[in-house]
Amino acid sequence: MKLDIAFSGCRIDRADHLRGDPQALAALMTHHARLLGMGGLDPALTADGELVWTSLAEADPEGELVFLGIEDGRACFAPVPAIANVGPPNPRLWQALAAVSSEDLAAYGVARALVGWHARHRFCAQCGGATVLTKGGWQRNCTACPAEHFPRTDPVTIMLVEHDGALLLGRQPRFPAGRFSALAGFVEPGETVEEAVAREVLEEAGVTVRDVTYVASQPWPFPSSLMIGCHAIAEGTAITIDVNELEEARWFSRPEVEAAMAGDPDALFIAPPVAAIAHQLLRWWLAR
Amino acid sequence: MKLDIAFSGCRIDRADHLRGDPQALAALMTHHARLLGMGGLDPALTADGELVWTSLAEADPEGELVFLGIEDGRACFAPVPAIANVGPPNPRLWQALAAVSSEDLAAYGVARALVGWHARHRFCAQCGGATVLTKGGWQRNCTACPAEHFPRTDPVTIMLVEHDGALLLGRQPRFPAGRFSALAGFVEPGETVEEAVAREVLEEAGVTVRDVTYVASQPWPFPSSLMIGCHAIAEGTAITIDVNELEEARWFSRPEVEAAMAGDPDALFIAPPVAAIAHQLLRWWLAR
Ligand SMILES: [Zn+2]
Ligand SMILES: [Zn+2]
Repeated sequence: MKLDIAFSGCRIDRADHLRGDPQALAALMTHHARLLGMGGLDPALTADGELVWTSLAEADPEGELVFLGIEDGRACFAPVPAIANVGPPNPRLWQALAAVSSEDLAAYGVARALVGWHARHRFCAQCGGATVLTKGGWQRNCTACPAEHFPRTDPVTIMLVEHDGALLLGRQPRFPAGRFSALAGFVEPGETVEEAVAREVLEEAGVTVRDVTYVASQPWPFPSSLMIGCHAIAEGTAITIDVNELEEARWFSRPEVEAAMAGDPDALFIAPPVAAIAHQLLRWWLAR
Repeated sequence: MKLDIAFSGCRIDRADHLRGDPQALAALMTHHARLLGMGGLDPALTADGELVWTSLAEADPEGELVFLGIEDGRACFAPVPAIANVGPPNPRLWQALAAVSSEDLAAYGVARALVGWHARHRFCAQCGGATVLTKGGWQRNCTACPAEHFPRTDPVTIMLVEHDGALLLGRQPRFPAGRFSALAGFVEPGETVEEAVAREVLEEAGVTVRDVTYVASQPWPFPSSLMIGCHAIAEGTAITIDVNELEEARWFSRPEVEAAMAGDPDALFIAPPVAAIAHQLLRWWLAR
């Protein structure tokens, strides 16, 4: 089935070959170029929930710009904010994003992940020197040593764990009341995707899994993850949660998952939001 | 089929719950603890190609240690070198690694990726201040601002592109003479795995693909990637290479791939080495 993966499907051509060509980039920075309207890491939105594009004349002359690519023959840029907090969007922004088209959401996601990375990487991790934006914002170079730095994307596994037709879902303490979702965790150095899934489920819920399979992936720009959605079979149903990670974990039957996904007010839990890959994984599972 | 994914299958229990417990970590640092012998980022190896484990008494009192986890009841540590170059191993090290068991190779891979990250992240990218190792080496904290930094793993797609029973393989200028391998590239912010595969193949070879599927993944510790192996179907066979990325790209028939994988001296190309996921993807493809 076709999943609706929020933040994917960006229609801006990344035009990778132009990034390393300072003359070509400079030639693109005309009055035809478009600047994404942003307040810090948040998007400016019209009353209809569309991204706001202005011109480079609106850019802070002291600020850095990231080259997102080319759309409809026009170069697209986004401004690096002075300061970037790494926290997730507040509930008001989430509400606003719900009205944004999938193409606009994807363009915003790329911009947010990139400009947030720049705002948090003004110094060289290797020597502490100042770094400067280069290659249209797809790299930063140190001014004091030869180090080159590249935008960071963190792979995260997120998994539906199944046993005898039921699914293991968990509650993180920060979740809104009633919400349960798929377990998840960062892939660590030295792990395959499949090993990371097995380790996370064992660590967080005390459940041993086998037969890990890949389902779908999602770029997640808060701040910059690649969510790798998987399915796995549990060897048993006994749960021992890691109380540092989870508040609760439990098994839900197919009808219980169906009720939650249908938004039934009597459902045993509240499903993850549509924009999260966990929601799409649950749709995929119900449709199988 | 079962693939032999080099650098996977580490048998050290990461014991995640101990990382955040300084007292527990200190209690593990006894004469029972093991220290991985390393020269910079390279492993010390016995004449039989085994990793060398010494005791914490051998550790540089000024140096930092990373807690790898627990194996056979003993805590395992690795030393952070003073300086870390980010280049790949030299041919002599590759030759030595070929004799190392898969379990030892996996343990070394985790250690190399982690200690290399520490050696390159002694300063805070957010403020330029000095950072200190914490949580047993699974985090660094800034001494001048509240920033916390985590080991980095870069997702990379690597893909077998197929058309009418033939495979698209490419040659990077840095490859040894005759070597062809699968195309590959970093996943960028704002992309799914499938989108990254399609973009890379279009950028590097001018080939449009569809039906991208996941095959297998591999942790690659030079310096710290997660290789995500995929398969895709090409819409056509016309090739336009990006000369900045590739020296050559061409289609190989199944018998031509079989000959290369068999090490036939008359083969049209030299297959990627066994330790590379590209080799395993080719095995998978031939076995299908
Ligand atoms: Zn530097
Ligand atoms: Zn700092």
